[in-house]
Amino acid sequence: MLKRYLLAPGPTPVPPEVLLAMARPMIHHRAPEFDPIFAEVRENLKWLFQTRNDVLQLACSGTGGMEGAVSNFLSPGDKAICINGGKFGERWTKICKTFGVQVHEIKVDWGRAVDPQMVAEALKKDPSIKAVYVQASETSTGVAHNCKALADIVRPLGETILVVDAITALGVFDLKTDEWGLDVVVTGSQKALMLPPGMAFVSVSDKAWRLADKAKNAAFYFNFKRERENQQKNQTAYTPAVSMILGLQEVLRMLKAEGLANVFARHATLAQAMREGVKAAGLTLFPKESPSDALTTVTAPEGVDGQQIYKNLRVQYGITAAGGQDHLKGKVFRISHMGYADRFDVITALAATEMVVKGLGYPITLGSGVGRAQELLMPKA
Amino acid sequence: MLKRYLLAPGPTPVPPEVLLAMARPMIHHRAPEFDPIFAEVRENLKWLFQTRNDVLQLACSGTGGMEGAVSNFLSPGDKAICINGGKFGERWTKICKTFGVQVHEIKVDWGRAVDPQMVAEALKKDPSIKAVYVQASETSTGVAHNCKALADIVRPLGETILVVDAITALGVFDLKTDEWGLDVVVTGSQKALMLPPGMAFVSVSDKAWRLADKAKNAAFYFNFKRERENQQKNQTAYTPAVSMILGLQEVLRMLKAEGLANVFARHATLAQAMREGVKAAGLTLFPKESPSDALTTVTAPEGVDGQQIYKNLRVQYGITAAGGQDHLKGKVFRISHMGYADRFDVITALAATEMVVKGLGYPITLGSGVGRAQELLMPKA
Repeated sequence: MLKRYLLAPGPTPVPPEVLLAMARPMIHHRAPEFDPIFAEVRENLKWLFQTRNDVLQLACSGTGGMEGAVSNFLSPGDKAICINGGKFGERWTKICKTFGVQVHEIKVDWGRAVDPQMVAEALKKDPSIKAVYVQASETSTGVAHNCKALADIVRPLGETILVVDAITALGVFDLKTDEWGLDVVVTGSQKALMLPPGMAFVSVSDKAWRLADKAKNAAFYFNFKRERENQQKNQTAYTPAVSMILGLQEVLRMLKAEGLANVFARHATLAQAMREGVKAAGLTLFPKESPSDALTTVTAPEGVDGQQIYKNLRVQYGITAAGGQDHLKGKVFRISHMGYADRFDVITALAATEMVVKGLGYPITLGSGVGRAQELLMPKA
Repeated sequence: MLKRYLLAPGPTPVPPEVLLAMARPMIHHRAPEFDPIFAEVRENLKWLFQTRNDVLQLACSGTGGMEGAVSNFLSPGDKAICINGGKFGERWTKICKTFGVQVHEIKVDWGRAVDPQMVAEALKKDPSIKAVYVQASETSTGVAHNCKALADIVRPLGETILVVDAITALGVFDLKTDEWGLDVVVTGSQKALMLPPGMAFVSVSDKAWRLADKAKNAAFYFNFKRERENQQKNQTAYTPAVSMILGLQEVLRMLKAEGLANVFARHATLAQAMREGVKAAGLTLFPKESPSDALTTVTAPEGVDGQQIYKNLRVQYGITAAGGQDHLKGKVFRISHMGYADRFDVITALAATEMVVKGLGYPITLGSGVGRAQELLMPKA
């Protein structure tokens, strides 16, 4: 028997009570028994997003939400800044170009966070830029960009909006959507929301809705205005992912029972223990600054192939983590601690990492990283 | 206790063994344990679609598949015929217009099937028309359009493609994708595929791929070429709806065990029993011709509100059926017998219909429709 552990940065494990909620018999989304469920989920999503605005619920994976966050707000020829510090920053650029948007790309070295001053200067130089696209947490590198600082720059501008890919951020660390002025926030179901992949969620500010009034890109399935109209009638424009919404109801109840501050504190503690454990084991964190609390990206030690670490975690120990993408392939491996994660997931991840790296011939003292994490994961006396 | 029966034309009931398959712990779509599952599902989808071509798997509801079936093949200014004989025919027109396509709409009275000759003439008059969009089964009216006859018209044309919305048709009645020359066939998960909503499936012919090479509409999330490239590596372009695919594996095994001919025969028998039962009870079928085997649309009897029948089915008897849409609201009600349906679902539907209609004061002999259906649902001696 090889017991399986899913410690990849999405999909993440789904709690058994959520799997059971989703396994309930199918109900019809236009029948009255769906109404209170959808109404509850809508309210609790606003709570989770820290917004007074509607949170649109789309049947698609996160990328569909990202596409809508371009096509609903910009027209061909419009200008946007895309902050590209990894695989998902690059995706903003690709989507924008697909929709005819002129991209001013701010490239950030993989492993670093964007310097908000660069965004401020670019916006000053060209005030016709309509939107700034960024990741709150860049999953390919494990770095968090400073969305609050970016919002402080974009918020005072009359028309420009800040669009945040929060797919591995929302429900992990604090993102004050309304208070900071994050105009569009996108997330997906399969990360901190502890659900299978298949839904995206998007909040939209009044400022962004004003921009949407002028946008001319074709949007039919991802038509945010039509979704908002339907949501306000407690419906969706097209058939929603019903069983996912049954699971979401359960997830949001779990998160509310824990409390937002506690959810963030749990993720912060787990992430800190993971990072300190990695360092105490003699390994190196890949991020040069601002590590995301969603996942930890570890640099493969000298002479060891990162892909081999990823493979041995799986084959020898039943742990699904993630390797590096593009030019990071073989150079890093990534371990998630977001969503349905607690201290023993971190301890398991560190123990297995130590064992795999030692098994590959790199000198490591077993228990060194685990011990350091244990110290941080004990209740405060 | 009010036991619930889901007899709406989608979502349809999900078999318990499929719900359980979907409730298995989450796995990662890039991990090796997903590979054989996805490979099996890909092969079995080809079997179900009766095609040698790849069947694309998208995380979205059916409308997302329909959008992709427009944006991937046509450019702004291109011409298309949309056959509009109901709510979903109308949706083809709306999607085409959203993407800048010049629509030649062939309007068909609700309750009737398109006359293929009208399509032949329109294509003769304007050979620059690049695509014909149709429903195999128009869910709003319960009518099946004759896709074989349409294919016979479109197939000989060098460049024009036939695009079939088979969302309430595939897995219900015979659609010989390759043999007839159905260039693009779209279906959704929540109908005869007996899954929750949240996935769309699309097959694409070589002729359609050649058209796709010239198309200029923006498609990122629904980029069929990118999906095909990924499928051929046994992957999807973006994160797939993993738990749905686990359920799909089970569904396709069930359908294969039953056999395609038996699946179609079962639906045909159920549909015939339902229609004969409705007539024997003294009620009228709404379709004037070519009723779909997926669902039966019944005209509300003189002086009885169709919405009230729909409501009483639900409130008094726990049955979720469907009312009429748009101008049919109050005039018809619709009952599905597709997917996870057997003879006692039809008998339940007929019994409840008789009881509700009688309860609303319309003279009906209880058991008259049920009895007729029973005759048809007994094993042949």
